[in-house]
Amino acid sequence: MRDITQRPDLYSINTATLGYNAPLSVIIDACAERGIGAIAPWRRELENVSLNAIASQLSANQMSVSGLCRSTYYTAPSELERRRAIDDNRQALDVAAALNAACYMQVVGGLPQGSKDLHEAREQVKTGIRALLPHSRDVGVPIALEPLHPMTAADRSCLCSLRQALDWCDELDPDGEFGLGVAIDVYHLWWDPDLANQIQRAGKRILAFHVSDWLVPTTDLVNDRGMPGDGVIDIPSIRQWVEGAGYCGAVELEIFSSRWWQQDMNTTLDTSVDRIARYC
Amino acid sequence: MRDITQRPDLYSINTATLGYNAPLSVIIDACAERGIGAIAPWRRELENVSLNAIASQLSANQMSVSGLCRSTYYTAPSELERRRAIDDNRQALDVAAALNAACYMQVVGGLPQGSKDLHEAREQVKTGIRALLPHSRDVGVPIALEPLHPMTAADRSCLCSLRQALDWCDELDPDGEFGLGVAIDVYHLWWDPDLANQIQRAGKRILAFHVSDWLVPTTDLVNDRGMPGDGVIDIPSIRQWVEGAGYCGAVELEIFSSRWWQQDMNTTLDTSVDRIARYC
Repeated sequence: MRDITQRPDLYSINTATLGYNAPLSVIIDACAERGIGAIAPWRRELENVSLNAIASQLSANQMSVSGLCRSTYYTAPSELERRRAIDDNRQALDVAAALNAACYMQVVGGLPQGSKDLHEAREQVKTGIRALLPHSRDVGVPIALEPLHPMTAADRSCLCSLRQALDWCDELDPDGEFGLGVAIDVYHLWWDPDLANQIQRAGKRILAFHVSDWLVPTTDLVNDRGMPGDGVIDIPSIRQWVEGAGYCGAVELEIFSSRWWQQDMNTTLDTSVDRIARYC
Repeated sequence: MRDITQRPDLYSINTATLGYNAPLSVIIDACAERGIGAIAPWRRELENVSLNAIASQLSANQMSVSGLCRSTYYTAPSELERRRAIDDNRQALDVAAALNAACYMQVVGGLPQGSKDLHEAREQVKTGIRALLPHSRDVGVPIALEPLHPMTAADRSCLCSLRQALDWCDELDPDGEFGLGVAIDVYHLWWDPDLANQIQRAGKRILAFHVSDWLVPTTDLVNDRGMPGDGVIDIPSIRQWVEGAGYCGAVELEIFSSRWWQQDMNTTLDTSVDRIARYC
């Protein structure tokens, strides 16, 4: 396991952590000042800005993009909507390629409006991913399937466990020719009794590693994540499994928190660097 | 799959659904009036009442107890506390036996206070269950392991999936001599991509089947369950799997809902009977 205590160059900040209050260029500078090695930006932040300018700014600071967030949901009641989602995600892959992102992050969608059919939802997602794999390979940006916490199954992600994500990888990209992989987020997966085994199984499929903490009590199903150290997740153990499986990419902090969004960006960034070093 | 539409004798009402506002004897009468075949009472409702009187009242109404709720948590920082929990649960088995309960329901506990060690928590639970199995057999009340939704892993249940519950059954009672089994609650398990397989695997280990619904959005991690039909769970499909595996016990409605707790008991019971018939 890597010693990351003095290595902010191995950290990444998912910009959702900062609440989208500052432009990306300002965030990049603030991260660069702290020696942070990567960011994971959101597509909304890249609208109406020059991708070349962002790429140049990152490059000038020896920074990279640990992942582009995130996919348009693949699940929808009509085939037209689902085709549009695929087209939208194809374009996003081009954006990810322009930034040389390590992966394109997938939050796949929950049940289609009005449906109770999880099996159908999952088939819709697989159809979408399958359609995108050739373009993913062509532009050189692997697709990262991110299993989300089961409490999001209805409205955000019918992909609910690492085992399921790896089953999909085996089904959709059995030989690894498309580089299809997974993102491991401790917040979504820490509870899984099968986690150590599945991480070992994942091996080189692991494209991203996300950290935050589970608060007790948790008062909101989406926006009450904690800063590492404030909750109950044994993050170092999970990182040890992930790195033992061969992962050597960034440790990405991704916190959706209405509390942290009220903080000043510099406070959040300073705390992030400190907490990754001490609790991840 | 059974046709349960005109069969309230196959329904059970978990008394938590009614918010503990009425004494058990009043609840039993209200259920009997509607032809409901069973209840699942809570231990707190059985303090300071005559178990014989309750048993007689149930018997006079041809009603049974689909399960006694619920175990004292097995996880705790000190061995003394863990021993006390086991003793407490041993006494509860006697209460369950006095009521001829179909099973003693287990909510096993989350992380011990101050701990981040899920593995240790799980070992504590298994140690506790193992200690109780002989008494469970002696009094003729099987222990039902209830996997809870992963969002409760920190503070209520480190037992998070049906697969895990069945692994524990195989480990603790490989030959089935103690009757150790599982409770399948659609609210906790509906998201699981492995659910159909694990239900088939469970077979005669299935001791209870609980219904309620997942609301979108869900605004509280504990007390925002929905009445069947108000959410997104395909309950009939899950019941089909459960009965296909051999289960022929009660369909038990268990809803923790600050909204339903504000309703009149008779309204809730009438709605329950209607919704089980139409949406389960």
